[in-house]
Amino acid sequence: MSKESAGKKVVRVGLLGFGVVGTGAAKIILDSSPPLVDVTGIEVRLQRAYTRDLKKARPVTLKPGVLTSDALSVVNDPEVDIVVEVIGGIEPARALILKALQNGKSVVTANKHLLATHGKELFEAALAHNASIGFEASVCGGVPVIGALRDGLVANRIESIHGILNGTTNYILTRMVEEQCSYAQALYEAQNKGYAEADPSLDVKGIDAAHKLVLLANLAFHSIFDFSELHVEGIENLAMEDVRFASQLGYAVKLLATARRRNPGADPDEVPGGLELRVHPALLPQTHPLANVRGVNNAVLVRGSAVGEVMLYGRGAGMMPTGSAIVSDILDAARGSAAQTFTKLQFFQNPRADLPVIPPGKIRSRYYVRFSVEDRPGVMGKLATILGNHGISLASVIQHEPQAAHVPVVILTHTAIEERFREALAEVEKLPFLKKPSAFLRVEE
Amino acid sequence: MSKESAGKKVVRVGLLGFGVVGTGAAKIILDSSPPLVDVTGIEVRLQRAYTRDLKKARPVTLKPGVLTSDALSVVNDPEVDIVVEVIGGIEPARALILKALQNGKSVVTANKHLLATHGKELFEAALAHNASIGFEASVCGGVPVIGALRDGLVANRIESIHGILNGTTNYILTRMVEEQCSYAQALYEAQNKGYAEADPSLDVKGIDAAHKLVLLANLAFHSIFDFSELHVEGIENLAMEDVRFASQLGYAVKLLATARRRNPGADPDEVPGGLELRVHPALLPQTHPLANVRGVNNAVLVRGSAVGEVMLYGRGAGMMPTGSAIVSDILDAARGSAAQTFTKLQFFQNPRADLPVIPPGKIRSRYYVRFSVEDRPGVMGKLATILGNHGISLASVIQHEPQAAHVPVVILTHTAIEERFREALAEVEKLPFLKKPSAFLRVEE
Repeated sequence: MSKESAGKKVVRVGLLGFGVVGTGAAKIILDSSPPLVDVTGIEVRLQRAYTRDLKKARPVTLKPGVLTSDALSVVNDPEVDIVVEVIGGIEPARALILKALQNGKSVVTANKHLLATHGKELFEAALAHNASIGFEASVCGGVPVIGALRDGLVANRIESIHGILNGTTNYILTRMVEEQCSYAQALYEAQNKGYAEADPSLDVKGIDAAHKLVLLANLAFHSIFDFSELHVEGIENLAMEDVRFASQLGYAVKLLATARRRNPGADPDEVPGGLELRVHPALLPQTHPLANVRGVNNAVLVRGSAVGEVMLYGRGAGMMPTGSAIVSDILDAARGSAAQTFTKLQFFQNPRADLPVIPPGKIRSRYYVRFSVEDRPGVMGKLATILGNHGISLASVIQHEPQAAHVPVVILTHTAIEERFREALAEVEKLPFLKKPSAFLRVEE
Repeated sequence: MSKESAGKKVVRVGLLGFGVVGTGAAKIILDSSPPLVDVTGIEVRLQRAYTRDLKKARPVTLKPGVLTSDALSVVNDPEVDIVVEVIGGIEPARALILKALQNGKSVVTANKHLLATHGKELFEAALAHNASIGFEASVCGGVPVIGALRDGLVANRIESIHGILNGTTNYILTRMVEEQCSYAQALYEAQNKGYAEADPSLDVKGIDAAHKLVLLANLAFHSIFDFSELHVEGIENLAMEDVRFASQLGYAVKLLATARRRNPGADPDEVPGGLELRVHPALLPQTHPLANVRGVNNAVLVRGSAVGEVMLYGRGAGMMPTGSAIVSDILDAARGSAAQTFTKLQFFQNPRADLPVIPPGKIRSRYYVRFSVEDRPGVMGKLATILGNHGISLASVIQHEPQAAHVPVVILTHTAIEERFREALAEVEKLPFLKKPSAFLRVEE
């Protein structure tokens, strides 16, 4: 970075990838609206930009010599101060980011997949080379949730994070609830509107939300977690029927990402405390702040020791929202304030001995379960007895008129350890009068 | 600030005022939970603390010599790096902050009243002495809305800010809607719960919300506004009847703070564009994100050119939430990243020639109006004719059964310039069949 005139700092950006997000960032930098240099005293210049296709028409005008098809020339360019990586995926993004860091350049990236699976390696490299990695753009588009956790809420011991972190699945679930359409229909609509990709696996299987949760947990709990430590379930097997029953019971179904400190419990089944890290569909009371997050929006609800509950909400993706976050990170890196993220050795040396990830079976929750049973006397009694034998008590029950040969029995339980609940479920499923595999969902209060 | 050991920076704080907020900040600093020094590399030390009553029992233990009853000794102490002002009010807070800035110390304050009425003087002094003023604690308690506008959304041209910025009035309005109680009853409850002061004027007259709106507008529109430029109305004359009618029409009534860019309109009545800056009760559609902000919570909805709509939500006040924001600002000042707020001369030299504050009469809005009329034929026609003659067209009408001698007629209009609407209202109010003064509220979409 160079100081050119009185008080003005120039920062030269090397862009890796010129797709949707890269174009958004370039538009903001080149359009100069807002007048960033007036507001921040920092002039951002687009110095080099790598793209595979030099000939492609673009909605921004670049100076001659900026565009290159040689990615390595961007990260090795001594004229580049900050490298923005928006190629996505693992390679070559990983190798290019490592090279940039080794060259002492700070990095800004929207690549949650890479950071959630290779975070330790990358943040360690940043620390070793006194550079920073900005990743505001990787979670919730332009909603400044990374900044909030890192700076605004720094004086809090974070107790929990609950998030709706994937717009595609939230759109699908919103359609299922509001239009009573099936998962398949809603997915088809999402694909038609450009909200879901042709292969929607990363979204609907909860993987994308889990990548983002890793990054939020890293910041909130001051450690580098890995995607492999999370329990992840998607929405691809969610039945319309369960969305409807949940609604009757006063609950919304959301793909919920949870990171929560758990104190040692009284229950001897439980682990001695630690961190829950999980992504799965869940029932949320309709009065819950996250229950009303509709369509492609994202939201993060943070509970901090001093601040109480804080929610940030907005559009989770898209060219301009993500571009907004990237430019904010560039300015952050230029000021040097990004440098404090994971730049203490202890984040790597002491991998949360005091905060182990709780295995999924040891999680405490309430449960929603639907059994399909034969319509004959004594069935409800049998079910309740087995659940009771395993220490699962019932909070409410819905039993409707018979549908064809079977009756759906829907039960909301009180809190229980998940492995106890699963044992009860396994025993129930051996009963002769059970007609279809049962469906179960966790309930968040 | 001094560097003591490898990588650790020490910042020494002088606290002015040891009431509720000061105690919250001190607790966070002294309890060391979260371990701030590990996370940020900055050790915050409470060096001096001014209080009028040295003998008062406090829930924190201070080292001997920290407490003083001489406020000036805090701002003049060469051992103090950052001064935290939580005395409140104009004097002596203003004089002490100016002295601290003149001594080259950065200032952190929760004093919206002072900043909204003496902002120009104080931010100019900060600029002159190369110091910063942090004011995250002055708006929405611990919700990091100042940080979001300053850093996270920096790459946006802000189009509008809508906020519920006062917890007391939002609690009162929530009770009026949900419990059907009168303004007077709800206020009494708020006072009993400690949410409203014995003299609630600053809150219920909209003044506190207006102070906060000034600070948000300063950041969003890169200028120093003054409280006197705002149009402010409170909720103290709001009738239960209107809250109920609004609810029937699908609207919530909120004390809404609005700062919005307005492009030049087609209407010859309008000013050529500028900024709306106003606080008043308003009808919000029940689907509006701010309509569901309940009780003492606050929320800010920002619309930015790149990011679209972003909302931040949380508890707007209290010892620990406000303490959380103060400590975050202390760390910000210690890192030097706070220095960029209003430290460009142009924020003072060029007072928004391009963005004048639009006079209230020139604002465009929809309106809710309730007339109390005699129950006789032709009345509705007369009303509609007069409104129509002034270019006000009706969107919907409710006319109920007569209540005693008069009938309430409730009208929602389409968009109109406020002075045209007021002219129509004045003409209607001269009609002989009008029984009571009419009530009107603006409607936000």
